[in-house]
Amino acid sequence: MKVNGQSYRPIWFDTADQTVKIIDQRVLPHEFKIVPMKTVDDAIGAISQMYVRGAPLIGVTAAYGVYLIIARKTGDTAYIKQECDRLKAARPTAVNLAWAVETMLTEILAEPDPQKHLNLALSKAGQIAEAEVDRCYQIGIHGARLIETIAKTKKKPVNVLTHCNAGWLACVEYGTATAPIYVAHDKGIDVHVWVDETRPLNQGSRLTAWELGKHGIPHSVIPDNTGGHLMQHGMVDLVIVGTDRTTYTGDVANKIGTYLKALAARDNQIPFYVALPSSTFDWHIRDGIKEIPIEERDPEEVRQVQGLFQGQICQVVVPPADSPCVNYAFDVTPARLVTGLITERGICEASAESVLSMFPEKGVPIKLL
Amino acid sequence: MKVNGQSYRPIWFDTADQTVKIIDQRVLPHEFKIVPMKTVDDAIGAISQMYVRGAPLIGVTAAYGVYLIIARKTGDTAYIKQECDRLKAARPTAVNLAWAVETMLTEILAEPDPQKHLNLALSKAGQIAEAEVDRCYQIGIHGARLIETIAKTKKKPVNVLTHCNAGWLACVEYGTATAPIYVAHDKGIDVHVWVDETRPLNQGSRLTAWELGKHGIPHSVIPDNTGGHLMQHGMVDLVIVGTDRTTYTGDVANKIGTYLKALAARDNQIPFYVALPSSTFDWHIRDGIKEIPIEERDPEEVRQVQGLFQGQICQVVVPPADSPCVNYAFDVTPARLVTGLITERGICEASAESVLSMFPEKGVPIKLL
Repeated sequence: MKVNGQSYRPIWFDTADQTVKIIDQRVLPHEFKIVPMKTVDDAIGAISQMYVRGAPLIGVTAAYGVYLIIARKTGDTAYIKQECDRLKAARPTAVNLAWAVETMLTEILAEPDPQKHLNLALSKAGQIAEAEVDRCYQIGIHGARLIETIAKTKKKPVNVLTHCNAGWLACVEYGTATAPIYVAHDKGIDVHVWVDETRPLNQGSRLTAWELGKHGIPHSVIPDNTGGHLMQHGMVDLVIVGTDRTTYTGDVANKIGTYLKALAARDNQIPFYVALPSSTFDWHIRDGIKEIPIEERDPEEVRQVQGLFQGQICQVVVPPADSPCVNYAFDVTPARLVTGLITERGICEASAESVLSMFPEKGVPIKLL
Repeated sequence: MKVNGQSYRPIWFDTADQTVKIIDQRVLPHEFKIVPMKTVDDAIGAISQMYVRGAPLIGVTAAYGVYLIIARKTGDTAYIKQECDRLKAARPTAVNLAWAVETMLTEILAEPDPQKHLNLALSKAGQIAEAEVDRCYQIGIHGARLIETIAKTKKKPVNVLTHCNAGWLACVEYGTATAPIYVAHDKGIDVHVWVDETRPLNQGSRLTAWELGKHGIPHSVIPDNTGGHLMQHGMVDLVIVGTDRTTYTGDVANKIGTYLKALAARDNQIPFYVALPSSTFDWHIRDGIKEIPIEERDPEEVRQVQGLFQGQICQVVVPPADSPCVNYAFDVTPARLVTGLITERGICEASAESVLSMFPEKGVPIKLL
C-alpha cells in the first residue's frame, strides 16, 4: 500500500541492488526504517526480534530466508537442510514459518540441477508472497461489499472499528481485517476507522494507525475501553477484526480484548465480522474456548509502554515496581457472537455447516460435525 | 489505609505543625510525595492540577480550602466569599466541590463571633472528611458480606475485578469499590484483585495497584482487554466498580470501559456490583445512556503515556504524530447489566423500585417513576 504516496510492502526483493528488504516494524510509527536482509541470520533475527510479525509475513520472510541460504551455498543439501532447521526455530509456534520453509525446500530439492536452485528459490518466494497478496485482495473484494451496502443507506462516512493490526504490515498487501477498508476506500467509498490502541503492545496505535494514515484513510485512535460507548451511540457501523486461529465451527481466537468488542457489538446490533484466509482455519478443533491454548506472555509487555520521548524511542514503566502484571495474549470469541467470516472465497456464517459448505474439500476428515 | 505499615489518608490536618497536608497523586506510584497546603491557592492548584482527584476527596480538599481562606483573613466576609468563589471554580463540574464550599460557608457565617470562625472551619472540614470515611466504611461492611459468602464456597482466593480507581485515594479512607475488599482483607478473608490498568490515564495501574499493594492486598495489573478472557475461564468471582453518577433507575456512569466488563460479567454469569455513597445518585434522570452527558477530554491523554524512564517521570508518545485520538472519559452501563448497588445503607437492586425503597425520603420529588 502507499507510504507518502509511494507503494510499499513490508518485504520485497529489490532488483536494483539484488537484496531482500524489510520494514523494521519495531520502530514504527516513529521511524520508517528499511533494513536489508543479506543472510539467513538476518532473516532469523528479523523474525525472532519482531522486525516482522503477523503469520503471513513471517511465512514470506522465511521463504526469502531459504533463498538467502541457497545464495550462500548453492548445491550443499546438508548445509541447506541444517540452515532451514535453524530458520524454522526462529519462532517455533508460527505455523506459516514451518510451512513456508518446508514448501520452499521441497520444491527446490525436487530440481536436480543445483545451478537452477537460486533462481527457483527467488521465484518461489515471490510466488508465496503473491499468493498471500491474492488471498488478501479477495478478502478485500468480498468485505468491501459489506461497507458499500452500509454506505448506500447512510450519508456520513461508514465507521468501521478494528482491533490490533491485521493490516498490510502483518501480511504483504491489503491485510485481512483492513483489506475491505482499503478496497472500499480505493473505490471512493467514504470510510472512517476507529483504531483500538490494543494494549499491551499497542499494535493498533503503533501499526494500524500508521498504515491507514500513510494510505490516506481517515481514522481515530481510541483506548480499548472506548468501543462500547461508541456502539451505544451509533458511532460504529461495522466491526472487522483478524484472527490467529478460527475453528471450523466459528470460534475466533484473536488478540486479547476482541471478545469484549464482540459482546458490545451484539448488545447494540452491530455486525461483527472476522476476516481470514482459509489457512487460518483449524479443521480439528470444535470448541475454541475450551481447546485453543492461550499464550501467556512476558508481564514486562504490560508493565512497560514504548513511545517517543525527546526524539528517542524508549520504554516507560507505568505500575508500581512491586505490582505483578499478567499478560494473556489472545482471547476466544464464541461463534454465537460472530456475524460472519470473510474468506478469500466469500463470506460465510460462523458455523461448521456454513464453513464446510464454502470449503467442501475440508469436510472429509471431519468426523464430529 | 496503610502505606509501608503506617496509616495515611490522601488529606489530613497535621496537628504537629498545624498544616493541611496532601499526597501528590500525580507522581504516584513512582514517588510518594507529601505536599503542604498553606493557602487557598495551594488548594485551588491541588484540585485543578489533580494532585487530588475523586469527587469525595475534591470536596474535602475544598472544605480545608475554606479553612485556609479564614486563616488568612478572619472576619472579612467580602474577602471570604470572593475567595470561596475562586475555590469553587477550580474544577467547575465537580458537584462535591461546590457543595463542600457552600456547606462550610453557610455554617461559618452563621456564627456571629468571627473569633470562633477559624476553629469552626477546621472542625467542620474534619467533620466533612469523617462523614466520607463513615459512608465508605458502611459500603465496605455491606460489600464485604458478598466476598465472605463467595469465600465460604471456594478454597482459592476470592478474585475481584475492578476498573479505574475508586479507592481510598479518591475518597478519604476505604474508598467505594475497594471498601469491601479492604474490609474483607482486614477480616482475614483471602482476596486477590484483578486491577484493570484503565486507559487512557491508567488510574488502575498507577493508583489502585499502588494503594492495594501498600496495604498488603494481593493483586495483579491487567490490560483492560483481559477481563473477558479471565471471566470465560472462571478466574473472576465478582466485579466491583465505583461510579461518577448513577441514575435512581440504576444506570451507572463510570470510567470508560466499565460497560464492556459488565457485558462480559453478564455473559459469564458473574455478579457485577457498583459501590456508591447515596450522594452519587442522580434523582432526576431516568435514562442514563440518553441523558448523562459524557465528557470528551484532551486527546493528548490518549496520545501520551506517563511512566518512569531512567528514574524520571516522563510522557511518551505512542501513535503517529498525525493520527487523531479520541478521548471519551466515561460510559454508561445500563441497569439491566448491574447485579446490585452497594450503598452506605445496604445493597439494593439497580432499579427505581429498589433504590427508592432504600432511600424513601428521595421518592417524593420523583414524578415519573
